[in-house]
Amino acid sequence: MAFRLTLVGKNYQMSESRNVRWGVIGLGWFGEVHADNLAEMPDIELTALCTRRPERLTDVADRLDVENRYTNYRDLLADPSVDVVSITTHIYDHRDIAIDALRSGKHVLLEKPMAPTVADCNHIIQAAEKGGGLFMVGHICRFDPRAALAKEAIEEGRIGKIISMHARRNLSRAIGRMVLDDISALMGDGIHDADLMLWFSQAKVSSVYAQEVHPGQNKYPDAGWSIARLDNGAVAVVECVWHLPENTPYAIDARLEVIGTEGALYINCGEAGLAIHDAAGVKMPDTMYWPRPFGRYCGVLQEELRYFANCVRAGQAPQRITPAESRATVAWMAAATESAQTGSVINF
Amino acid sequence: MAFRLTLVGKNYQMSESRNVRWGVIGLGWFGEVHADNLAEMPDIELTALCTRRPERLTDVADRLDVENRYTNYRDLLADPSVDVVSITTHIYDHRDIAIDALRSGKHVLLEKPMAPTVADCNHIIQAAEKGGGLFMVGHICRFDPRAALAKEAIEEGRIGKIISMHARRNLSRAIGRMVLDDISALMGDGIHDADLMLWFSQAKVSSVYAQEVHPGQNKYPDAGWSIARLDNGAVAVVECVWHLPENTPYAIDARLEVIGTEGALYINCGEAGLAIHDAAGVKMPDTMYWPRPFGRYCGVLQEELRYFANCVRAGQAPQRITPAESRATVAWMAAATESAQTGSVINF
Amino acid sequence: MAFRLTLVGKNYQMSESRNVRWGVIGLGWFGEVHADNLAEMPDIELTALCTRRPERLTDVADRLDVENRYTNYRDLLADPSVDVVSITTHIYDHRDIAIDALRSGKHVLLEKPMAPTVADCNHIIQAAEKGGGLFMVGHICRFDPRAALAKEAIEEGRIGKIISMHARRNLSRAIGRMVLDDISALMGDGIHDADLMLWFSQAKVSSVYAQEVHPGQNKYPDAGWSIARLDNGAVAVVECVWHLPENTPYAIDARLEVIGTEGALYINCGEAGLAIHDAAGVKMPDTMYWPRPFGRYCGVLQEELRYFANCVRAGQAPQRITPAESRATVAWMAAATESAQTGSVINF
Amino acid sequence: MAFRLTLVGKNYQMSESRNVRWGVIGLGWFGEVHADNLAEMPDIELTALCTRRPERLTDVADRLDVENRYTNYRDLLADPSVDVVSITTHIYDHRDIAIDALRSGKHVLLEKPMAPTVADCNHIIQAAEKGGGLFMVGHICRFDPRAALAKEAIEEGRIGKIISMHARRNLSRAIGRMVLDDISALMGDGIHDADLMLWFSQAKVSSVYAQEVHPGQNKYPDAGWSIARLDNGAVAVVECVWHLPENTPYAIDARLEVIGTEGALYINCGEAGLAIHDAAGVKMPDTMYWPRPFGRYCGVLQEELRYFANCVRAGQAPQRITPAESRATVAWMAAATESAQTGSVINF
Repeated sequence: MAFRLTLVGKNYQMSESRNVRWGVIGLGWFGEVHADNLAEMPDIELTALCTRRPERLTDVADRLDVENRYTNYRDLLADPSVDVVSITTHIYDHRDIAIDALRSGKHVLLEKPMAPTVADCNHIIQAAEKGGGLFMVGHICRFDPRAALAKEAIEEGRIGKIISMHARRNLSRAIGRMVLDDISALMGDGIHDADLMLWFSQAKVSSVYAQEVHPGQNKYPDAGWSIARLDNGAVAVVECVWHLPENTPYAIDARLEVIGTEGALYINCGEAGLAIHDAAGVKMPDTMYWPRPFGRYCGVLQEELRYFANCVRAGQAPQRITPAESRATVAWMAAATESAQTGSVINF
Repeated sequence: MAFRLTLVGKNYQMSESRNVRWGVIGLGWFGEVHADNLAEMPDIELTALCTRRPERLTDVADRLDVENRYTNYRDLLADPSVDVVSITTHIYDHRDIAIDALRSGKHVLLEKPMAPTVADCNHIIQAAEKGGGLFMVGHICRFDPRAALAKEAIEEGRIGKIISMHARRNLSRAIGRMVLDDISALMGDGIHDADLMLWFSQAKVSSVYAQEVHPGQNKYPDAGWSIARLDNGAVAVVECVWHLPENTPYAIDARLEVIGTEGALYINCGEAGLAIHDAAGVKMPDTMYWPRPFGRYCGVLQEELRYFANCVRAGQAPQRITPAESRATVAWMAAATESAQTGSVINF
Repeated sequence: MAFRLTLVGKNYQMSESRNVRWGVIGLGWFGEVHADNLAEMPDIELTALCTRRPERLTDVADRLDVENRYTNYRDLLADPSVDVVSITTHIYDHRDIAIDALRSGKHVLLEKPMAPTVADCNHIIQAAEKGGGLFMVGHICRFDPRAALAKEAIEEGRIGKIISMHARRNLSRAIGRMVLDDISALMGDGIHDADLMLWFSQAKVSSVYAQEVHPGQNKYPDAGWSIARLDNGAVAVVECVWHLPENTPYAIDARLEVIGTEGALYINCGEAGLAIHDAAGVKMPDTMYWPRPFGRYCGVLQEELRYFANCVRAGQAPQRITPAESRATVAWMAAATESAQTGSVINF
Repeated sequence: MAFRLTLVGKNYQMSESRNVRWGVIGLGWFGEVHADNLAEMPDIELTALCTRRPERLTDVADRLDVENRYTNYRDLLADPSVDVVSITTHIYDHRDIAIDALRSGKHVLLEKPMAPTVADCNHIIQAAEKGGGLFMVGHICRFDPRAALAKEAIEEGRIGKIISMHARRNLSRAIGRMVLDDISALMGDGIHDADLMLWFSQAKVSSVYAQEVHPGQNKYPDAGWSIARLDNGAVAVVECVWHLPENTPYAIDARLEVIGTEGALYINCGEAGLAIHDAAGVKMPDTMYWPRPFGRYCGVLQEELRYFANCVRAGQAPQRITPAESRATVAWMAAATESAQTGSVINF
């Protein structure tokens, strides 16, 4: 595909090279997944990495042969060899880093959730509106063909008007233990399904109620359920339990069902086409999001990264997911958290 | 099995015949299913039928060769050739007929839900305590091997302490249209899962919240979601949508997932082992509840009827489901209905 | 159901009691399952047990409170308190015991496969034709609602003319190790699917080819595949592997798919509606064949036993499965065994 | 990813541009899919198209904005602006075009099956060995993450030594009608699973038996089953039925199960994570091979094309699938066809 660089809309900073040059800020587990994928993708060059942990930085940068290494993200933002940054830090660092990155003129791909509060989201969005770069929150599920084809079927009217939706996104408690000091199950994963539901229905949240359960020893609750009434009359229910048995066969038990007046659709990401029964039990590995057969990544994360790279090359603001849509999911999950803590219904 | 009639507990009215003689009050669709099953079962004699509709009475009674026919249920209750009555009328008739039946000394198998309100349930339970017969509400799912084996696994501690439960019981809108003038989806079907959840968890409801959607033209809402907090800390969520597409492959899309601290279990009654793809589409017929291969019923309903017949023969009050447990499910679903109407959380 | 004893067809030996009195010859694992089920069924009386192992006899008979106990099956056959015998011995004992039982005038329910060879089947069938009792081979799958409803759909023409069938019936190697000294996977389990396929298609086998694999240490091969051409032009393929991992989640991975000119149907007995995930892994217990929730059997085996009891009471030869049909499945599997041993195609 | 062009092994023709310039010969349905995907991929330039049908050529080339258009494939092969050709013609044209393409020095990606006979395969392989370009047959399934992760699990020893394999690849008869004049189900689709099975087992075929059924009106049989004995003792069974009902929910009902001495694995491509129930019935669209959400392709075909492009850039012969492996699958399926026609077992 020969990109014809037609600069439309924003005045962005694109280097003369056709390769999009990318930096990653935050090298936790998922930051490394970003880096690994970027390093393997055509038309993209992974040029810079940043983490506060020097040893981690050396490990990852050596392995991926990245020269520009930073322990202070501001230094990476000042690096002219970077066009785009992935921000893959903890959610509580999202606001400040994203704002600084946007002010620096970089294109910013910020991991979800955008921020812990709607107020923080607003600050980020203001910075994005003023900044010279493009901005997208990484709502990866919108790039999942299962969800995207579902969205198309809904747009074509195949299931009529949406009445009821349920989403589940459950994980092993082994994963829960690693993550639940940083974020709750509902905020961490419910955000995905809140987004898909609002995307599918093109509706707004009218009211939110939630319950959380906290059987673990971590800071945030392991399990949460939120039920929202939408302004089109539909009910939308999100289930996140990060407390499946450690030997659960599910890499992730993620499902989403949408019932409309004329039809219904059923997304099942929990059973993704491969079950391995061995001496250790049953495992159903990820085959769609970032599988790595023969040491080479493929899948939905690359589709997301490719999409943003194409937006950058074309100088076009991302349409697949907008900052305002990202903020709406934070609004829902923040309200759900409040509801779970207070026991009351939150009206929008 | 040679029953040894050891009269324990209650002083009941058992005819000398070893056959349990049964009458059915209410010959709607499900009353007829009761009658048909009873007519086929060993050790049971279907001796009487009652419906207010004379033509319907003649049709069913002729077909099943039943001599004692009544259009007034009180006449059936006065019939000495009846040991047990199935009450399969509309829910709003349950209270009066059940009380009269219990006062008459008959053994009473009352279809679920026991009654529309807890107050009605209390009146029925009082009559049952004073009456000479045994009393059970027909919570058929407790006789489903999938649910019963799940209960055993939970009792054995295999999944630890329950954290989160979700149940779905969705039906074609074609069925919805036939039933939704008599009862809501949540009251009509949620009652099953409320019961299973309280049975599995041995917990009590602490609070209830619900949302209903009413896309159809019938009296009651087609779709309802209820989320309950239980007194053991678990969250229990019930989904009932009687608005699946008319050509839905599901005879019933009924599922129940239970996540505990040590394990999880997944019941799937929606996919029951047979899918038929023909010119009309995909159908997954009932193979478990009351399938009728070669014109002869088998399945879970017969297990329930057999269980109650055995209780009657043995003179032992049913243990599988008690009236107080039945009442607890009505309490939940009545609160859910109130919550859906008021938008507020109902605390118990 | 009041049985009206209209003696049609055969002159059978029915005791005056309405209870059908049953004896079991052979108390291996499945003989005990027969006995347990019979002991729990209404209208049936378990009156006699026989095994060559005196301790086993005492154990089972004591537990089930059966008075008439035999170590020589001929003594049981001489017992006038027995109307029906289940023969649940090893396949190599089937011929002689079945013939003696039929000559004694008992009604005989013989476990599948009828016998190891067609010649043996012929001898048994001759004895059945001369004997005074009814005779049925226990092809339990014909009483499985999933298979029976499939058969009805086929008879109704919903899938047109059958083109292709595949059946799988795979088991843990833990079970294999217990059984493979008595019978091969193909003869032991393939017989079920051979029967269903011939029943569904109403066709005859034209040619048979097979391959077996023998990775285990037992006498007979653990795994076998047989492909038959039927005289209606369809291909029918049977897969039996008794070498799944010991911790396989499947109680039995049994499936059967039938593709016709106008439709297709899919039977899945491997996933039977309940999955339990606990510390030991994933288990999907039997919920259909002889589940035993709360210590009480229900399911398809009881349907089979009930069917034969009803035939006995009514004095009517079983129609659901005839001896000639049973023999046809032995013919197929015996030919498959020969093909696997010789490497050549067996033409019928 | 900055490709470092280290010319190893073959002396290939790579233009100076970093973009790999691609031509497509054959614009049937799948040739167009190739063209569409190539046109959307980064680092690849679709520079030439060829079909004998001028109108079709204009349609596709106009839509994709391709300048170099040919109705004679030899002209395309003479075009210096083409580095790589996809050959997506009918199987009976594969041999001659592939040989000419290889002789012309182009890199060649040939659609599967390589050719109708082993002799033809040998001729192609000879041309490839002498030619200046790289050569790969497009066994797309090896790029499917489900299959590739399965292969890795097998290589890691997780399922031990393979005993038994079964693969199904069934399609609607609507597709059958379009394709069955060009190729049989077994040759057309069985080739995929034959390849996966030989790849998984690293074994060779010892003997082959097959049956075909021909209910349709097209030239080749709609349905075929082949059973192979492999030289490691395993049994491998391939099922291809291109006669599912026209309204089948399956885009493709493709499954593959592998049972080993220590474990088992189950690939299910038939249920790929999305089911849409609408007025027309149930549909489970492709979400993995070449889904096209929002008008943009993604999936396994692109992984295959990307892999070959990377081989071309790196000047390294493809390792994922070798010509000799492709030939082995033709050998199996050609033998299966012969067996089906003669009724005899083909020994290798």
